[in-house]
This record gives sequence, C-alpha cells and structure tokens, in this order.
Amino acid sequence: MDKKISLAVIKRLPRYYRYLGDLLDNGITRISSKDLSKRMNVTASQIRQDLNNFGCFGQQGYGYNVELLYDEIKKILGINKQYNLVIIGAGNIGQALVNYINFQKRGFNFIAMFDVNPRLIGMTIRGIEIYDIDTLEDFLKTHNVDIVVLTLPKNNAVKVSKIIIDCGIKGIWNFSHVDLKTPPNVVVENIHLTDSMMTLSYKLNNKDCIIDDEY
Amino acid sequence: MDKKISLAVIKRLPRYYRYLGDLLDNGITRISSKDLSKRMNVTASQIRQDLNNFGCFGQQGYGYNVELLYDEIKKILGINKQYNLVIIGAGNIGQALVNYINFQKRGFNFIAMFDVNPRLIGMTIRGIEIYDIDTLEDFLKTHNVDIVVLTLPKNNAVKVSKIIIDCGIKGIWNFSHVDLKTPPNVVVENIHLTDSMMTLSYKLNNKDCIIDDEY
Repeated sequence: MDKKISLAVIKRLPRYYRYLGDLLDNGITRISSKDLSKRMNVTASQIRQDLNNFGCFGQQGYGYNVELLYDEIKKILGINKQYNLVIIGAGNIGQALVNYINFQKRGFNFIAMFDVNPRLIGMTIRGIEIYDIDTLEDFLKTHNVDIVVLTLPKNNAVKVSKIIIDCGIKGIWNFSHVDLKTPPNVVVENIHLTDSMMTLSYKLNNKDCIIDDEY
Repeated sequence: MDKKISLAVIKRLPRYYRYLGDLLDNGITRISSKDLSKRMNVTASQIRQDLNNFGCFGQQGYGYNVELLYDEIKKILGINKQYNLVIIGAGNIGQALVNYINFQKRGFNFIAMFDVNPRLIGMTIRGIEIYDIDTLEDFLKTHNVDIVVLTLPKNNAVKVSKIIIDCGIKGIWNFSHVDLKTPPNVVVENIHLTDSMMTLSYKLNNKDCIIDDEY
C-alpha cells in the first residue's frame, strides 16, 4: 500500500478491531455503519471514510460482514503475525507487561528482560529471564528481536534507544517519560502515563469546557 | 474559563509542561516559540495557537519566560492541587501504578486498592492496603476520593464503573480494555495498552505510509 495514512486514522483501527471482536463474541455476524457508529460513538461517515483508506469492505444495503472485516483489520494492523519483544527496565511496569498474558495471546512474545539492578539480574518472571544490561547488544545481535520495550528512567531511555537503534531495532514501545528522537526507519509508540494523568486532571477541572474530539 | 477547548490541544499541554520542566532543569529561563518548536517537533504557530487558548504568555521579541509558563501550565492542568485516588484491581498494572512514586510527587495520592482475590485482600503495597471489593461503596461514601483507577478485566470494569459513578466519582483513569459509557459530568481518561501495541504493530509494518500528525 503506497497511500499515506494519517496517524489519527491508524489509532482508531485497534478500536474498530476491539468492537468487531465484541460483536463476534456476541454472535453478531453483520452490522451497518450506522449501528456500528452508535456503539462506537463516532459518525457513520467517519467509519466509512476510515475503512475506505484500506479497501472496500462494506456493501450498500448490507453493511459489514463482521468476521470478514475483523480479519481484514487484523491483517492491516499486522497482528496476524508473531513478534519477539525485549523489555529494558525490569521494574514495576516492565514486570506488569510480562505478566499480562493478553499480549502473548495476540502474538507479542516477550523473550528477555534487561536491567542494571544486580538484585533483579538472574531472576525470571513468568519464565522470562532478566539479564544484565551489559549483555544487551550481544543479545540483540544474536536474536531476532522485532520490538524493544523501554520501561526505564528517561535519561537512560535516551541512551539505550541509541544503542538499540544501532543494533538494528526498528520498533520501540516507549513507556519512559521522554520523547525519543529516532531516524525515519524506526517507529516509536509512546505510553506516557504521567501525561495521561495530567490530562485527566485537566478534564476533571474543566468538565464543561472540553470539545471531546478524541475519536 | 468558558471557552471550549479541543481535546487535541489539551493532550499537548502535559507535553509542553514536560519540555518546560526539562528546560528549567537545564537552567534555561527564556525561550522563543521557534526554539521550543524545534525541540518539540511542532510548528511555532501551533505552540502560539495552543497557548493562546489559555491566555497571553509570550512577549513579542522576548519569547516565553520558562518558569512563568511552566507554573501557568501547571495551574491550567490542575496539577498544583492534591488528588486522592483509589485503584480497583490490585493485579500487576494496579501494583505497578502504586509503586510508581512519580505520581505521588505530583500530588496524585493513592489511598486504597480493591480486589476480589482473597489472596490479595489484606496485603499492603507501599503502605497502601488492598481491601475487599465488597467494601468499595462504603469506602467511597466515607472518604474523599477524586479519581478511581480501573485496572481490572473489561467485563468487571463496566460493572464497577456504574457503582463508582453512583457513589459520585467524577474522574476515571481507565486501564481496562473497554470504552466506558459515562454521564457528561464524569470524565474518563483511557490507557488502552493493547490498542497501543496494535498501533505499534501497524507502524512497524507500514513505516513509509504514515502521516505522522500525532502532535
């Protein structure tokens, strides 16, 4: 696919996937964009417009075949494949991610963790070993790693991001509280918990003055 | 403030706050929107436009006073106040949040956790006790709770969200993999980890076809 797609559209795809999965779980096999729109709280025209970026899925007068669309979005998202992940920073968030079995169910397989803390090195969490950060480069060079998860303090995150990019890593899931500068062929997805907490604080203090254009 | 502000703008505020904090840490006391724009990878006109929503902070030919702007954004975000938080779901993510001391530093104080698991009930994590979910309503009615954090499976999250809203809770930080339907006077901020992971998967598979309009 050569057409460029806006990140705003892309970020809605997992949401479509989630709602379609719920429909399937409830035995619903077909749905109009209007009905889907009501459930998802977005306009029907936005749904049609979003999905049209990726192909022709709906049928006039019939709507969407739920299972077909679900499978198509799965392929579009690339979650029909398997990924090897490494976590750097075996603290609370890192350990929580490894313990969250849903990721593995979806093909995201954690194969190693790394830390600087001697008390953590050598431990295993759900069968995943925590290695010394000093062995990271060797590990990345000798294993097939698709995604590195950064769950370490921000100063170290910047340093480590340079090392992993030099080792050829192309995907970073960044939980560290910093925006990473990366070359164009490396993609980053951020989870900034503190930013999210602050956004909630704003919302709480300004309930009536927000245009909710999130989706 | 009566003017309605787009959520897209609001979500950029914590990022401004973060960058201004870094500038302060580095002893930089004043900055032009142009220099800030370079650091943050957004246009200078976007910065001016965003901040103008909240008042008049810059000065032609001088730029922004970093400390002043930092303090103003702090107030705008409402993070100059203290908040009491309760976590429902004392699993891995819930525990990780309690252990993350940065939240407390910023005035977000966890005062209790709740769970259904008898093995967890009665335990304390960083001094925060895990209570039986059956005592939740009583707790909420007798304590001043500003924000409830939902870190439990999606079906239970929907059920629990109704209970806490009935108890008068106005702010929900939702880590459960579901969109909650709430009345207009209740605000929700979502962290959907699985959605984020899928977005990363898409990015990884379509590096050259993304318009990066995230900020």
